[in-house]
Amino acid sequence: MITRSSLALLTDLYQLTMANGYWRLGRSEQEAAFHLFFREPPFGGGYAVVAGLAPAVEFLEAFSFDRSDIEYLSTLTGNDKQPLFERDFLDYLGNLTLSCDIDAIPEGTVAFGHEPLVRVRGPILQCQILETALLNVINFQTLIATKAARICAATRGEPVLEFGLRRTQGIDGGLAASRAAYIGGCAATSNVLAGKHFGIPVRGTHAHSWVMSFETEAEAFAGYAEVMPNNCVFLVDTYDTLQGVHRAVEVGKQLRDRGYKLGGIRLDSGDLAYLSVEARKILDAAGLTDAVIVASNDLDERIIESLKAQDAKISVWGVGTRLATAFEQPALGGVYKLGALRDAGGDWQPKVKLSEQAVKTSIPGILQVRRFETSDGLVGDMIYDETMGVDGRSTIVDMKDSTRRKVVPAGTSSSDLLQPVIRGGKLFAQPEELSVARARAQSELEKVHPSIRRFLHPHEYPVGIDVGLHELRDRMIHDARERSWTAREAT
Amino acid sequence: MITRSSLALLTDLYQLTMANGYWRLGRSEQEAAFHLFFREPPFGGGYAVVAGLAPAVEFLEAFSFDRSDIEYLSTLTGNDKQPLFERDFLDYLGNLTLSCDIDAIPEGTVAFGHEPLVRVRGPILQCQILETALLNVINFQTLIATKAARICAATRGEPVLEFGLRRTQGIDGGLAASRAAYIGGCAATSNVLAGKHFGIPVRGTHAHSWVMSFETEAEAFAGYAEVMPNNCVFLVDTYDTLQGVHRAVEVGKQLRDRGYKLGGIRLDSGDLAYLSVEARKILDAAGLTDAVIVASNDLDERIIESLKAQDAKISVWGVGTRLATAFEQPALGGVYKLGALRDAGGDWQPKVKLSEQAVKTSIPGILQVRRFETSDGLVGDMIYDETMGVDGRSTIVDMKDSTRRKVVPAGTSSSDLLQPVIRGGKLFAQPEELSVARARAQSELEKVHPSIRRFLHPHEYPVGIDVGLHELRDRMIHDARERSWTAREAT
Repeated sequence: MITRSSLALLTDLYQLTMANGYWRLGRSEQEAAFHLFFREPPFGGGYAVVAGLAPAVEFLEAFSFDRSDIEYLSTLTGNDKQPLFERDFLDYLGNLTLSCDIDAIPEGTVAFGHEPLVRVRGPILQCQILETALLNVINFQTLIATKAARICAATRGEPVLEFGLRRTQGIDGGLAASRAAYIGGCAATSNVLAGKHFGIPVRGTHAHSWVMSFETEAEAFAGYAEVMPNNCVFLVDTYDTLQGVHRAVEVGKQLRDRGYKLGGIRLDSGDLAYLSVEARKILDAAGLTDAVIVASNDLDERIIESLKAQDAKISVWGVGTRLATAFEQPALGGVYKLGALRDAGGDWQPKVKLSEQAVKTSIPGILQVRRFETSDGLVGDMIYDETMGVDGRSTIVDMKDSTRRKVVPAGTSSSDLLQPVIRGGKLFAQPEELSVARARAQSELEKVHPSIRRFLHPHEYPVGIDVGLHELRDRMIHDARERSWTAREAT
Repeated sequence: MITRSSLALLTDLYQLTMANGYWRLGRSEQEAAFHLFFREPPFGGGYAVVAGLAPAVEFLEAFSFDRSDIEYLSTLTGNDKQPLFERDFLDYLGNLTLSCDIDAIPEGTVAFGHEPLVRVRGPILQCQILETALLNVINFQTLIATKAARICAATRGEPVLEFGLRRTQGIDGGLAASRAAYIGGCAATSNVLAGKHFGIPVRGTHAHSWVMSFETEAEAFAGYAEVMPNNCVFLVDTYDTLQGVHRAVEVGKQLRDRGYKLGGIRLDSGDLAYLSVEARKILDAAGLTDAVIVASNDLDERIIESLKAQDAKISVWGVGTRLATAFEQPALGGVYKLGALRDAGGDWQPKVKLSEQAVKTSIPGILQVRRFETSDGLVGDMIYDETMGVDGRSTIVDMKDSTRRKVVPAGTSSSDLLQPVIRGGKLFAQPEELSVARARAQSELEKVHPSIRRFLHPHEYPVGIDVGLHELRDRMIHDARERSWTAREAT
């Protein structure tokens, strides 16, 4: 984010009308637990890479309603033209400081469907007014980090440059996309502001307009090499691509004579498989074997995979629109659901929301994710209720088909993914460096079986509910259905 | 935008390396003309609604490189580990104030492929470093305004509420989406910050979590009605939808007795066609004929059209993800191309970029768009070069098939779409109120023939190049190809 001022109004209005409701019913301090999660990994893939936590924390640290926010809210009216919010509630908001506890899965961690990425516990009013901003930040950055990881997998370790700024959703969309793409594995960005803010390496040379602004392409390349000899990657397709490669080679030889080196050429249109092979021959024939071939033009993991299968001679990949907007699926669909509520007696009561689709029925409890792994890699993840603890049967029950169960072998090592981030509204742990999250993503992905990382019909990673929690949830669903029908018959 | 501080670094690095090149070659003040345009309207549709100009102007007004920007740029290095930029160039940037002229098509105007939405004229260095930010802002907002216009067309005038904040690209993505959706015709947003910043009406009542936080749905609705009687639109699908409608009706009757009225109910899952019809019957049977049925759940123009065709009894439409991310096509693909360059003698020289695809070959010149209309509506648009003027033949040549030509009937009234916005780097005209842009979109869309507004295989609006400019462009393409081949033979 580019501002440290509070963005407390970055929320859906219903969060504030509900807050008003809780407050006026004397329930604003009643403790609740909410979970932020997605149901299916994006892009038909088998996993997601978590991102967005540090910007979310920045938002939380600055959180407060300022005088102008309160003044604005006081102007809103209901369907009787009377104020929506009364003054005393607005005064309460104006004096509000966060006191909730937040736990989250660290950025760069690989995550799967239904796992809480963020858990917010505290006064229900606070849990509610944070929902929209948390979803906004985590949804988008997780989506883009995941897309980047897939694209980097397709290039098989060759550098991916993120070029998406011109197609993102405004300033912050651009910054967020560059940041998340870096976590997911991109090597650099074209976005200079992201370079400045996040320390991400930046890359770029020239556009078609540079070439067009000279009488000839040869003059354009020579002019560039004259003044920026240490940053020459020539865009060769303004007029005729292979002709452009010959022009670049001429200038490359001159650079060599001057003690510099031609960084490479960039292909931005046409048949990249054919052109890269021909361009490589031309460069190699001139002894410019070090010069890289950068390719761009609506690339994504599927096109890159196809170019690789065709033995395209591309060694650096510029990816813009399809990465920064997650073109094939531009929203993660993360949600934020109530899991438990503390009753008047001080006990936590699990809560469930039904749905026509079993998989959309929420998981009750104060949830944590336990990940099991061996030296061979990840074995499975269990979502369990911290107040219940893990059932002695050590069994993970599939969410879609409860007859599918996995017993965790004895001696498998495990760790809990949700880590404390905010305690009593205050920062608990300093945010990590971006490079730490990026390194985590890389090492985590290596622990995921290749069949789960596959693009087409990936193998499903074993993630499910602790068997004790599953049985409780089942009973709760039956009870809620029963109550609903009894109430209907009474109507 | 939420900050007034300069975002000069919100650019691709290559804009700055090119700037360095122009400056060091003594060409930084050479005058150029660039055009920002898209090639095809989004979503397979027949038109776009322009948006994003006011935020772009805000960016331009604040434009300058501050000390920390310059310091950051001084740390960047080339492939020899030496600085990318020399100190004297960075000093130049640090002292730079814009002096260019910018013309743009007003927000809310209906536009078509290849028409310059923004034209930037002035020192080539300045034109270049503004490119990325202009594309970022105009691309996204035009995309969303267009999507909103399509969705509003599908509801046939029934109000559309924009609910997309949780799925947009960060803060600014969310604000930009709400703003553009309002221009395109949405009635309100859930985004409170957008309400505060842009004066857009805001709407919202409660979520599933409100219902889940009470023992029963009946208590949840009654509790809400007790404290917010003037904002009751009950979400009825937490447990069993039609059962929920009955509960809402009970509370609606109590509200009526108290002198308030039930705003309505909201359906957020299940078969909206079936449920809305049944819910309408239940509401009407209770005499609550004024209570509206709001529907949401991954709606877009196609689903709305289908619901309308099934006589769904929905009267207010909540649209989130698929509007705010433009789900089916999340990027407009707008580009920014050099059209002309002033030579040493002071004459403007048109410039062209070739492409394998004829339609991607750029249009040379300093372009303007002339729109022809009669009292029946829009007749056609002609892209012409201001330095050449309109050819006496008054003929529009199709971009894809130059044998398709339209002669403008004598006496057709016309106006030029690009209006002065910035002159000599300074604001020329005060930005319009958002409501003016929104009203313009509505009246413009009415002038577009229904066959062009159709979703499926829309009729193509006649837009093309002035015949004189077409002939010049053709000659330039032939000459450029010729030069390229001659150069190749010489290799």
